Amino acid sequence: MTPDEMARFIEKDQFARYLGVEMLDRGPGSARARLSIQPHHLNSAGTVHGGAIFSLADAAFAVASNSHGPLSMAINVSISFFASVTEGALYAEAEEVSLAPKLATYVIRVTDGAGRRVALFQGTVYRKTERAASPG
Amino acid sequence: MTPDEMARFIEKDQFARYLGVEMLDRGPGSARARLSIQPHHLNSAGTVHGGAIFSLADAAFAVASNSHGPLSMAINVSISFFASVTEGALYAEAEEVSLAPKLATYVIRVTDGAGRRVALFQGTVYRKTERAASPG
Amino acid sequence: MTPDEMARFIEKDQFARYLGVEMLDRGPGSARARLSIQPHHLNSAGTVHGGAIFSLADAAFAVASNSHGPLSMAINVSISFFASVTEGALYAEAEEVSLAPKLATYVIRVTDGAGRRVALFQGTVYRKTERAASPG
Amino acid sequence: MTPDEMARFIEKDQFARYLGVEMLDRGPGSARARLSIQPHHLNSAGTVHGGAIFSLADAAFAVASNSHGPLSMAINVSISFFASVTEGALYAEAEEVSLAPKLATYVIRVTDGAGRRVALFQGTVYRKTERAASPG
Repeated sequence: MTPDEMARFIEKDQFARYLGVEMLDRGPGSARARLSIQPHHLNSAGTVHGGAIFSLADAAFAVASNSHGPLSMAINVSISFFASVTEGALYAEAEEVSLAPKLATYVIRVTDGAGRRVALFQGTVYRKTERAASPG
Repeated sequence: MTPDEMARFIEKDQFARYLGVEMLDRGPGSARARLSIQPHHLNSAGTVHGGAIFSLADAAFAVASNSHGPLSMAINVSISFFASVTEGALYAEAEEVSLAPKLATYVIRVTDGAGRRVALFQGTVYRKTERAASPG
Repeated sequence: MTPDEMARFIEKDQFARYLGVEMLDRGPGSARARLSIQPHHLNSAGTVHGGAIFSLADAAFAVASNSHGPLSMAINVSISFFASVTEGALYAEAEEVSLAPKLATYVIRVTDGAGRRVALFQGTVYRKTERAASPG
Repeated sequence: MTPDEMARFIEKDQFARYLGVEMLDRGPGSARARLSIQPHHLNSAGTVHGGAIFSLADAAFAVASNSHGPLSMAINVSISFFASVTEGALYAEAEEVSLAPKLATYVIRVTDGAGRRVALFQGTVYRKTERAASPG
């Protein structure tokens, strides 16, 4: 993708915008995003919801995995949660671990403002090419 | 938890409310939730964002795992995505697979309005007791 | 695959044979396997090694996912362990959760001789077709 | 654990010995292991079995997670496979990602002799203390 195409790709992610995810940086196979914690990100225990942490990491995952051009669709993600967070900001940094013609895998590290590890997200995408009309 | 305590627990989940997750049903170790798809749930490809699907399942996971009383915190989740969805509603149904004093595991099946399988979520919680003051 | 082709496929799995995995049953998208516990399956704590439990489930996963014909290669697996086992036999039962042209997902439940839940394995394969020469 | 206790811990892992896993190195929260590929490690497709790759990584995971003293039991693992391997040796290197009183998470990278990425394993353990008699 060209920088402009990527900017439009990010702009079109309505869910990430609704949550308040900001894309800080991106490159081929990488991305860095931030979520400034708001009351509507909290769960019943008063800490940031696992779904909000996942969604922040997923936004970085989507940008990193789509950076090469082909439309990349998440097929599997595993996430481990290490610490509860109640305020400040969360950061997600995506790194490409493996890139093959049809599949690619990324690790996304989520940390808080102090650099403390909050979650680790490992995700695999299926990379569509023009010939493959149907997903999966 | 008593039904009243559970109602307050659900009410306090600001993130689930912000996304529009509705809790349809719950019991000991089980829960069923719905998400009526809105434009702000969509990703850059115009389909429901993986983070929205995860968050719906996570809300059912939280209610099912906290139903027995002890505060349950997600420590690991793995989710597989099978189909893209663009409109209508999504449903998440949580089932308890294993319950031990400190750990419990749940499977949450996500389907669309036609009953088609959309995602499968497998999550484990750490169950805090009063004596254990620190998470983890 | 024809029954004969599947019999040869199972026969050729040297690792499963080395461990002592027996294939009890199979069908389109399904399989059931058994491991009779031997001392060489145990870990440092004297219980069946996670690798042995995984390998039993993986053997059922391979038979179920290859049953339709196209060569299926595991791309991701998540496994949760619920109970320690020291003797008797373990059983793995594979069920197809999703089948698409290029991807398929299976759940494999591992139980002991008394039917107690030991582990839950969720795995996704990439299905190769003749046109796709390279893996991934 | 003292070096002697760890040596006995490794010596007692009958499954790892049966497969031919060698522990090359270890430290607090870390471990490095090797598997020299033998015919009995191969699957029906003639490549190293996913169960063998998992077991190699799992052996490094066990040594790294038990290095601090408390008995650590795997509760969840997610593994992604990137490349098929047919000969030579595989290496697994475990790194501690998070350490809390009752839970800890490790990433284990599996590579071949040329340093090519073969698999990525992310695992969480429950750390037993003397007071907690029952697992989970």
